[in-house]
Amino acid sequence: MGVEAVLADGTILDCLSTLKKDNTGYDLKQLFIGSEGTLGVVTAVSLACPPVPKSVNLTFLGVDSYEKIQEAYKMAKGKLGEILSAFEFLDNSCRESVTENLKLKYPIDEHPFYILIETSGSCAAHDTEKLDEFLEEVMAEGIVLDGTVASEPSKMNEIWKIRESVAEALLHDGPGCYKYDISLPVPHMYNIVNIMREKFGNEATRIVGYGHFGDGNLHLNVVMPTYDQEFLKILEPIIFEYTKKYKGSISAEHGVGFKKAKHIHYSRTPEAIQVMKMIKQTFDPKGILNPYKMLPS
Amino acid sequence: MGVEAVLADGTILDCLSTLKKDNTGYDLKQLFIGSEGTLGVVTAVSLACPPVPKSVNLTFLGVDSYEKIQEAYKMAKGKLGEILSAFEFLDNSCRESVTENLKLKYPIDEHPFYILIETSGSCAAHDTEKLDEFLEEVMAEGIVLDGTVASEPSKMNEIWKIRESVAEALLHDGPGCYKYDISLPVPHMYNIVNIMREKFGNEATRIVGYGHFGDGNLHLNVVMPTYDQEFLKILEPIIFEYTKKYKGSISAEHGVGFKKAKHIHYSRTPEAIQVMKMIKQTFDPKGILNPYKMLPS
Repeated sequence: MGVEAVLADGTILDCLSTLKKDNTGYDLKQLFIGSEGTLGVVTAVSLACPPVPKSVNLTFLGVDSYEKIQEAYKMAKGKLGEILSAFEFLDNSCRESVTENLKLKYPIDEHPFYILIETSGSCAAHDTEKLDEFLEEVMAEGIVLDGTVASEPSKMNEIWKIRESVAEALLHDGPGCYKYDISLPVPHMYNIVNIMREKFGNEATRIVGYGHFGDGNLHLNVVMPTYDQEFLKILEPIIFEYTKKYKGSISAEHGVGFKKAKHIHYSRTPEAIQVMKMIKQTFDPKGILNPYKMLPS
Repeated sequence: MGVEAVLADGTILDCLSTLKKDNTGYDLKQLFIGSEGTLGVVTAVSLACPPVPKSVNLTFLGVDSYEKIQEAYKMAKGKLGEILSAFEFLDNSCRESVTENLKLKYPIDEHPFYILIETSGSCAAHDTEKLDEFLEEVMAEGIVLDGTVASEPSKMNEIWKIRESVAEALLHDGPGCYKYDISLPVPHMYNIVNIMREKFGNEATRIVGYGHFGDGNLHLNVVMPTYDQEFLKILEPIIFEYTKKYKGSISAEHGVGFKKAKHIHYSRTPEAIQVMKMIKQTFDPKGILNPYKMLPS
């Protein structure tokens, strides 16, 4: 809700407001959120702390195509509506990596894709009823082939672990792990994984796609037998051009940092980059705050 | 979700993204939201259009103190949780103004304060059950004294009209209507209305407080027999000092514009105002975009 930052000249900028509504001038805190320390050093934040939801449920489902995930998502938005708190997806290559490398067990049979849905609400009876109705309908319509439901914390943790261990499992696949964090309009999101498999499937150890479906956020990982800086020159233009074509973001939730500064033009217009540079110059004329990061030189 | 703006030098800045996640550099659209045309002319926006909720309910309640509204709000957050879509309040002076001036009828007896609660959800049966349970509990605990419930659109519109006609009704009270739109921490929000009544109650035609309780946003109106610019010099320091004392905002949802530019220091620190001026200077060095507005000279 608020941020305190120390600026390049030592000024302490206090925007630690906790107000839900405040229209007195520019919303300065927003400039610092995601600025990766290039405009000031954030020294304090104010956060909203909503109470823990009374009822949490998880379901883990198997589907046979990416299109079916989209259908399930649409139905979840309608049937689960206000209690839908997570809608994640994984492809079967993720399963292969976590089962081979980390010996984790999946609670359902093998399918081309998996969906993890979490609900959070204020009334356990209502939430269960909504989730049951949703599951009945996606099963009856043949959208979902298989699934399990959990509401006990230990079983929910096990299911979340399947999703959250993918990054770790891929590290075990070898040193040549090229990781991307992109956002795209949902209908176009997974096709870049297919393109990667067409181009590099023969050489790659593993190529996986998973992520935050509801946010249109894909974690694309291409694991090659070795890590080679030269390969980036082949790989990245394909991924970033595809992202640009569909007006996506080459850096959805992780930062731009040092590595992606030169690629920011794939997601932002020249005018936007110029305005960002102008802001950086205004806040940090000597370029002392996290230099060489985020913006291209 | 996104904004397109024309800058002072004619540059068209396209930040019309519709992505939920995008971390490629500074979040420029946020600078334009609420900037009142001082940084650029907004020429297009992209908006999220969520579907109309399947179920909407309204309840209008009478309570005997401001403290009871706070108790009811706490209970509503717990019992209605994810379906709570509005929590508004009015004092009895609002009722007097709309009944005298606009001949509107209230659906319940007279009380010191009124609460309007709206729920929006995906399942009518669940929503009604949650609302009934909430109402039973606030009645049983003596928090709420009286109330009515509506789910038919015509009756819901009538109730919303009671809330939304206050501003119009006050205009009928005479030309000396001094209107303020402030946000404050909820426990301190209404006391400024009491302070106004203590100081100006004898001369005033009417002094009312109402607003968006859940947002901590109070609409304070002091209606005097005549409008007098000199009176502002007495009135505004009291309201704005009170707001500053509790780290509130002197301009919660309406803009700062021309009138409140010189008062912005009550809500923002000197450093924040300096940074805003620096941003304004960077974007509009010739001062041609909506001049004299928002920032003090």
